[in-house]
Amino acid sequence: MKNKKDIQSLTDERNVLIDKVGVKGVRYPITVQDKEFGTQPTIADLDIYVQLPHDHRGTHMSRFLEVLNEYHKDSIVENLENFLKEVKSRLHAEASFVNVRFPYFLKKKAPVSGIESLLDYNCFFEASFAESYDLVIGVVVPVTSLCPCSKEISEHGAHNQRSHITIRARFNEFVWLEDLIAMAEETASCEIYPLLKRVDEKFVTEKAYSRPRFVEDIVREMAVRLRADDRITGFRVESENYESIHNHSAYAFVEENF
Amino acid sequence: MKNKKDIQSLTDERNVLIDKVGVKGVRYPITVQDKEFGTQPTIADLDIYVQLPHDHRGTHMSRFLEVLNEYHKDSIVENLENFLKEVKSRLHAEASFVNVRFPYFLKKKAPVSGIESLLDYNCFFEASFAESYDLVIGVVVPVTSLCPCSKEISEHGAHNQRSHITIRARFNEFVWLEDLIAMAEETASCEIYPLLKRVDEKFVTEKAYSRPRFVEDIVREMAVRLRADDRITGFRVESENYESIHNHSAYAFVEENF
Amino acid sequence: MKNKKDIQSLTDERNVLIDKVGVKGVRYPITVQDKEFGTQPTIADLDIYVQLPHDHRGTHMSRFLEVLNEYHKDSIVENLENFLKEVKSRLHAEASFVNVRFPYFLKKKAPVSGIESLLDYNCFFEASFAESYDLVIGVVVPVTSLCPCSKEISEHGAHNQRSHITIRARFNEFVWLEDLIAMAEETASCEIYPLLKRVDEKFVTEKAYSRPRFVEDIVREMAVRLRADDRITGFRVESENYESIHNHSAYAFVEENF
Amino acid sequence: MKNKKDIQSLTDERNVLIDKVGVKGVRYPITVQDKEFGTQPTIADLDIYVQLPHDHRGTHMSRFLEVLNEYHKDSIVENLENFLKEVKSRLHAEASFVNVRFPYFLKKKAPVSGIESLLDYNCFFEASFAESYDLVIGVVVPVTSLCPCSKEISEHGAHNQRSHITIRARFNEFVWLEDLIAMAEETASCEIYPLLKRVDEKFVTEKAYSRPRFVEDIVREMAVRLRADDRITGFRVESENYESIHNHSAYAFVEENF
Repeated sequence: MKNKKDIQSLTDERNVLIDKVGVKGVRYPITVQDKEFGTQPTIADLDIYVQLPHDHRGTHMSRFLEVLNEYHKDSIVENLENFLKEVKSRLHAEASFVNVRFPYFLKKKAPVSGIESLLDYNCFFEASFAESYDLVIGVVVPVTSLCPCSKEISEHGAHNQRSHITIRARFNEFVWLEDLIAMAEETASCEIYPLLKRVDEKFVTEKAYSRPRFVEDIVREMAVRLRADDRITGFRVESENYESIHNHSAYAFVEENF
Repeated sequence: MKNKKDIQSLTDERNVLIDKVGVKGVRYPITVQDKEFGTQPTIADLDIYVQLPHDHRGTHMSRFLEVLNEYHKDSIVENLENFLKEVKSRLHAEASFVNVRFPYFLKKKAPVSGIESLLDYNCFFEASFAESYDLVIGVVVPVTSLCPCSKEISEHGAHNQRSHITIRARFNEFVWLEDLIAMAEETASCEIYPLLKRVDEKFVTEKAYSRPRFVEDIVREMAVRLRADDRITGFRVESENYESIHNHSAYAFVEENF
Repeated sequence: MKNKKDIQSLTDERNVLIDKVGVKGVRYPITVQDKEFGTQPTIADLDIYVQLPHDHRGTHMSRFLEVLNEYHKDSIVENLENFLKEVKSRLHAEASFVNVRFPYFLKKKAPVSGIESLLDYNCFFEASFAESYDLVIGVVVPVTSLCPCSKEISEHGAHNQRSHITIRARFNEFVWLEDLIAMAEETASCEIYPLLKRVDEKFVTEKAYSRPRFVEDIVREMAVRLRADDRITGFRVESENYESIHNHSAYAFVEENF
Repeated sequence: MKNKKDIQSLTDERNVLIDKVGVKGVRYPITVQDKEFGTQPTIADLDIYVQLPHDHRGTHMSRFLEVLNEYHKDSIVENLENFLKEVKSRLHAEASFVNVRFPYFLKKKAPVSGIESLLDYNCFFEASFAESYDLVIGVVVPVTSLCPCSKEISEHGAHNQRSHITIRARFNEFVWLEDLIAMAEETASCEIYPLLKRVDEKFVTEKAYSRPRFVEDIVREMAVRLRADDRITGFRVESENYESIHNHSAYAFVEENF
């Protein structure tokens, strides 16, 4: 029988610090804070990494999952800092990192009929703990955008399409995912809904037509709103418009103090 | 040193005929026939399978790639039947199958300015040879759809979006991919273009507004056109509209003599 | 102001029956039955369709979401037949269809240490109601496959990789997703786990080495197991092996009485 | 008829500089330089952006496609700097950006039989021109990785899997994509091939078993090789191992002078 060395604990002489090493694409049920209902169960896709000093050969991959198992029943947003401290400590690392991507549902009321339905948003947290805790929260908000140029030059109608507004934000006071989602929906030509009756469809069609927005307008209005929110210390905003008249997207990106 | 059996050639006693076995997701440069320019180089994603009789343990996976290597320089459409016969023969099989998926480019002329650009279409062939040759050709055509209901009930504007019309067709006389693409583009509210100047954008906006189509209308008009083409013996048509006012798609599907 | 017709209710003279029309890609939180814990909350991706007679112009897309809203709090597996009847009735259709795709988690015990973790499986239901109820249940089970040929011809080692075994089954007596998952895990070279300690990693490595399986073996052994289960009346089985020595997959497919 | 303003040329008073605005996901046939054959035709997925000053309302999206049309027949690698200068000038911008992602094929000789086949690599260029030209070249190289720990602790065999090594590099002297691909293939447990005969399969199985590599080893050996190449001035290296014993990946990332 072979002699079984703990190979991961050997020293390494190649003198290469590894910025991030760990597990990627772990699916896991989690609980997140919900502004209206307290908490919401959802399913996350997680990456968990540590920084590895140049003189350690390997990390112990199973420990990432062990720490995750200990935290999965609690609301992960409230505990992300402790989770990262625990990962950092258990892996004897200088820094730890976690990305948490998950769908999040909000109840939407149709604008005229008031009929309710649930809309899904892709949300995420990107957090790290080196000397201190750093947290970025993010949302991808599906909206309608309607082209100002198309409206201006055409006798009737204007091309419009689904767009994704992606926001990443750092803050100095708690910000709800719901707050970022609301900002994006106010910025777009119109917000979208899973369930619309005829009176609602008339409303959203006319609202979008009355609020044309270029992809540039969307990221700029988002920037103005995010700047105006005292809780937010820095941000990145992207908008991708899946153009209905092309087979490619229009795209814009703004970053401030991020 | 171990005795090396040719395990794939062993007999199998589980009495299970395998409908399809082979390689999936092989990327390969190919040449396809181009109505305007003779041939067009492109890059395919291929699946190649055979039927495996119940008494053979395994197939020789390397032979699929060997046959592919012998054919890759020729126009694969013209040679698909020979390719399948060769696979069937080389693998000692009762039936052989190939799926070929590839992007295909057509030169589009903007409707008013006449400015040219290249639009990509996802196309595919699904072919088999058991006792005789069977070929299905397919195209996925990106178009604009504009909602008749939204237009009817709204004072101004109408929601519209990118849609994908997917056609699968069998035929008794040669049909160009270009022919199926043209049918789909004539059916939609408007065709799409990579490059549009202001005069063109006005044209496509107004054209889409003047030709509203439900997802049901799209598949029905496609069915009427496909029935009317004497070369086509059977078909499947799908349309998926990536609704600009929802976060889901509207979808319809029709199949006749397929 | 324009006169607002209910366009969807107009008659249609193109004489094309639409096999399926409805909504596709609706994300929704659902509850499914869990063999160990009673129920499990998860997040589904749904398609809901009806057949549309040739003389109706359009369907009322909002009704699909309305029916969904009424069912979302109950365990959807137990109520899928009623859900389909309700869709069929509310849309005045001859047939209704639903696809439900969702991740499902099972607690796995590492084979030696007994340490527990949660593994995700992509599961699905494909159901319809025309004259009677038809239900197909499905699972995609990630496993390890190890190549018998590579083992046989090599002095040391054998190439192995992650594989996906996909099962679709019809049955005449209730079958748990857990039952299909267990069959697939027993068939593979080795089952997989999110969390393995060193003793477990030794176990799974040696177990996979001792149970080499071609992609053909996997689908055949699945077929033998599925035939032997009296509850199961028909099935489709696929295995896709993401070969560690190639950039493509090995694939096999068997269908019986499906 | 409405008065048609050129809305994109209006001034903007929101005082937000847009870092990047343009078109995303444009598919286009291109030609790239090939070390062995001079040039290789392939199909790219392109993003083309400019920086937009705070006082301009919008950019003219059609101009991106116009410039692309003028360049598509030439080898895009050789002309990327001129392409970016032209985009910058035509859009009156302070900076221009382009991402070009494309599959690239190399002829591989099986290690023992010498039989030839074509392997696909996802490659990319990320380039910009603000005050000067900046180019990052990149490759994603599929390889085999075999786990040192699994080998060490097990009586027989060792788990192995397909891994993707992604390299991004800046350089002061021309570097071929082929050079980066060769570095990654030398670093892995074994390189992969589309077509292997039995003698080759024995060779790659035994080679991988004799060269176990953790994900940490892969990125470190890559870092050592990249540092040793005088042409390369900075780099990022990632490795993602699609673990055959888990349903998630092992991942590592190193960045130096990038």
